Amino acid sequence: MNVFLESTRKDVAAFLSAYLAEKGKLFRGINAWGPDAVRKLRPFVRTGKMLRAGLVATGSALAGRRPGPSAIRAGAAVELIQAALLIHDDIMDRDPVRRGAPSLHRQYESQALRIGVREPAHFGAGMALCLGDIAFFLGFELLSTLPEPAERRAAIVSLWADELCRVGLGQMQDLYFGEAFPAVEDADVLRLYLYKTARYSFSVPLLTGARLGGAPLGLLRRLASIGETMGILFQLRDDEIGLFGSENQTGKPVGSDIRESKMTLLSRRLFERAGARDRARLSEAFGNPRLGARVLSGVRELAGKLGLRVELREEMEKLHARAGRAIDRLDAPAGAIRVLRDVLDFSLNRIR
Amino acid sequence: MNVFLESTRKDVAAFLSAYLAEKGKLFRGINAWGPDAVRKLRPFVRTGKMLRAGLVATGSALAGRRPGPSAIRAGAAVELIQAALLIHDDIMDRDPVRRGAPSLHRQYESQALRIGVREPAHFGAGMALCLGDIAFFLGFELLSTLPEPAERRAAIVSLWADELCRVGLGQMQDLYFGEAFPAVEDADVLRLYLYKTARYSFSVPLLTGARLGGAPLGLLRRLASIGETMGILFQLRDDEIGLFGSENQTGKPVGSDIRESKMTLLSRRLFERAGARDRARLSEAFGNPRLGARVLSGVRELAGKLGLRVELREEMEKLHARAGRAIDRLDAPAGAIRVLRDVLDFSLNRIR
Repeated sequence: MNVFLESTRKDVAAFLSAYLAEKGKLFRGINAWGPDAVRKLRPFVRTGKMLRAGLVATGSALAGRRPGPSAIRAGAAVELIQAALLIHDDIMDRDPVRRGAPSLHRQYESQALRIGVREPAHFGAGMALCLGDIAFFLGFELLSTLPEPAERRAAIVSLWADELCRVGLGQMQDLYFGEAFPAVEDADVLRLYLYKTARYSFSVPLLTGARLGGAPLGLLRRLASIGETMGILFQLRDDEIGLFGSENQTGKPVGSDIRESKMTLLSRRLFERAGARDRARLSEAFGNPRLGARVLSGVRELAGKLGLRVELREEMEKLHARAGRAIDRLDAPAGAIRVLRDVLDFSLNRIR
Repeated sequence: MNVFLESTRKDVAAFLSAYLAEKGKLFRGINAWGPDAVRKLRPFVRTGKMLRAGLVATGSALAGRRPGPSAIRAGAAVELIQAALLIHDDIMDRDPVRRGAPSLHRQYESQALRIGVREPAHFGAGMALCLGDIAFFLGFELLSTLPEPAERRAAIVSLWADELCRVGLGQMQDLYFGEAFPAVEDADVLRLYLYKTARYSFSVPLLTGARLGGAPLGLLRRLASIGETMGILFQLRDDEIGLFGSENQTGKPVGSDIRESKMTLLSRRLFERAGARDRARLSEAFGNPRLGARVLSGVRELAGKLGLRVELREEMEKLHARAGRAIDRLDAPAGAIRVLRDVLDFSLNRIR
């Protein structure tokens, strides 16, 4: 990946290591779960792509301020918030694997078996729920103590608090869509993507950085809009990888969207366009926790046969072009623009 | 209850109604779960005792500033944070009732049955998890937009973010104690009470208000300490009500501490002091989801026979006296001191 993003990732990883180690010491007096939480959170946050932290730094550079301690700290906050969302998400989706390791509720569940707990699965989910909450609070603590004028700190806290409400509502919709699989339109799924992923992953990190750089309102608006387009693209690629990728590359189980009967643009269209016989097969696959490789590859073939993969690619190319044009029109330092372009290309072509 | 607290409660309730209605409108464009969340949150926050919001106002008055819009807004934030904690708590404890109505995950579970969802219980827990997250974020949004100097706003956000990490760790310990019922000391349980209840319910609301009033460090320290004592007392009374109260009065099922095998000072001592035969009976009662009235009253009798209820009362009286002395020594307006005294008395004698 891009050198700027890679160097940001290293700085944020180092910051998070030191920060969490310090918190672990501070929390030692409360009970043993404090140091234990740090032992679990540290590798979890460090193995992320840290794309969002990179976008905070990029936003700062786009506004003409070289990313420094504030961008690193804000980036770390955003990665902790992302960790919290993933931890809560995995409980709801019952995903056993995340970032190439057991998901957090599974880690606590395994621990439960060692320490003698009545109901390991219930315990695991509850502990991970708490850990997610804690990661949110650590994120907010970092944002509220940025080495910036207080007005700017408070504004960035508000920005995140407000957006995370929307993410929560998106998450509710996602859970409902998966559990009930109601008849919906493409637009409903795209709105879900906007709030559950695009804005908080792209627009708001860019805005956070841009605010650190004192960006004018015009730039903030443009970045918010570019972030939305890139974020939708990123999510469409996620759908594509989720069905056509391999676990080796993604670090998460392939077909989990189908296993959990997730509503994606792809799955919605599969059901809409399949003939009666294929639809019956789809119904068997969707929401089947014991979905095997054979049935999964049947779904893949069907998506290919119906032209859905090609169609999805075309839509992704369109979004890529639209965001690219908007990026080219930005009045910002050329180096920062190149980084944003790289993220855009990554969103289209990433393998994990 | 006290007139000052009652009037604060009304102001905060009115504020929350208007604020949540506004949010419901704003969130309408995202999806139907936004207005739905408001329909559920509004009655939930309004039926609380709002003791914590009252303590924010009291803290302000103790620091010599008549509570105004900032105290009301901060109080509302604290009540939303409290709602979030209760919602997440009830998922973990599987409490079916809260504040005299079905707990939030149960409300979503009932809704699931109406809208045709695959797994109503899993759906209910997941939706309530999201709603709890959203309530946290709404709370932080309110704190970050207090009509106060930005430095003060950011400091109050930090205060809460930091303390809520400790609450999360306390909640983990609580879950572990309940699920494993390990051999622990009184001190372990009291430390649990300190972080899971006392500080965030008493110390931090008082500090929030006192900071709004620009209190000097000495007063802040004293209030933190008084809050801790009052909070432990409050929790001991909770234990007492939990075993000896009635559902009519408390609005939550009696005996749920036993049903969920909660580690309380009372339950720890019951196991420690009971003879072998009684201990076997206790083991049958603790963690038994179908615990009946007969077995429950057996546990009550045993607690009486072993002198535990009297002992608990004596400890509560001691804490009451200690906090009372510290309150009397405060250099603060007499009216505000009287309010704090009333809260102290309430903590000892409340029936819900």
